[in-house]
Amino acid sequence: MGERWTNTALLVIDMQSDFIEEGSVMQVKGGKSIVPNVIRVVELARERGILVIWVVREHDPQGRDVELFRRHLYNSEKVGPTVKGTVGAELVNGLTIKERDYKIVKTRFSAFFGTNLHSFLQTSGVSNLVIAGVQTPNCIRQTVFDAVELDYPSVTVITDATAAATPEIHTANIQDMKNIGVKTPSLQEWSEELA
Amino acid sequence: MGERWTNTALLVIDMQSDFIEEGSVMQVKGGKSIVPNVIRVVELARERGILVIWVVREHDPQGRDVELFRRHLYNSEKVGPTVKGTVGAELVNGLTIKERDYKIVKTRFSAFFGTNLHSFLQTSGVSNLVIAGVQTPNCIRQTVFDAVELDYPSVTVITDATAAATPEIHTANIQDMKNIGVKTPSLQEWSEELA
Repeated sequence: MGERWTNTALLVIDMQSDFIEEGSVMQVKGGKSIVPNVIRVVELARERGILVIWVVREHDPQGRDVELFRRHLYNSEKVGPTVKGTVGAELVNGLTIKERDYKIVKTRFSAFFGTNLHSFLQTSGVSNLVIAGVQTPNCIRQTVFDAVELDYPSVTVITDATAAATPEIHTANIQDMKNIGVKTPSLQEWSEELA
Repeated sequence: MGERWTNTALLVIDMQSDFIEEGSVMQVKGGKSIVPNVIRVVELARERGILVIWVVREHDPQGRDVELFRRHLYNSEKVGPTVKGTVGAELVNGLTIKERDYKIVKTRFSAFFGTNLHSFLQTSGVSNLVIAGVQTPNCIRQTVFDAVELDYPSVTVITDATAAATPEIHTANIQDMKNIGVKTPSLQEWSEELA
């Protein structure tokens, strides 16, 4: 057991307080409800020896490395979303980075944009990607499309361990990804595949 | 004053203890002697309102994000060079990151490889780069060649604020860069240009 999964990595994307908890200007409405499933996906991955990669945003306090359309959020008196070193940038309760995991800091939607992710995956012998986190139309989808364009042979999105502002947006985006060959199992279906 | 330099950024590359101080397996022999000049370059940049960007290596404790040819340095009992969070990864004495500065973490020679540097420079309106640090044939040169390939209109290497293992290697590489249109002033010449 285990060997079959050594070329698989789990990407957990943006499961940070400022994207999940109530009250943040950046809250993804569907995010809170998937936390237990994301926790379970991480547990299952660890049991199978799947490499866990935490993809997070950590931004400059002045917002100089944020997308232009969001930069105004960093120009006020309040601390902007997921500023490096703030509580809002931390993973939500229940999710923890462990010793063999890896962390990628990104500043745009895609986990591949301006990061060493592709280099790290290649040199780690990873060809299969499993994706969980928020939010489906932006960071999840953009990472998935980049992975497909980079020819990762297997890209899987766990449908109930990812979320968007509304179920409609989520479902429409999952369908688009399915249409380009992405696997879209539920957590239950994925756990059966692992078993 | 000042406005003339708002489209210029200073990249200070790899001025970390493990590359500079005696006794490190990664020590760049010529590094220690340029520290005072690098400090001066940073001071001059600040005086002119030039954006200061600290480019550093911070590696995984297991070396999973290091070049293959160096990975053996992370497989021994000893902590590998510039591991994230260790003293060896810190800037050498005399160099400090200040509030308006920016920090880029890289895992390869070029400051552009697998980082958001190009994205950050573009959105900050930077077209002119000034470069200091270590070491000339690797991280300095690879960053410079990438900058030229990315069409930054002005790339400057301060010749006595950069260093290599030997003066011969340093000089030969400076000459190669000069031959592709890179400006190669001394600190004195650069400070006169700023004045």
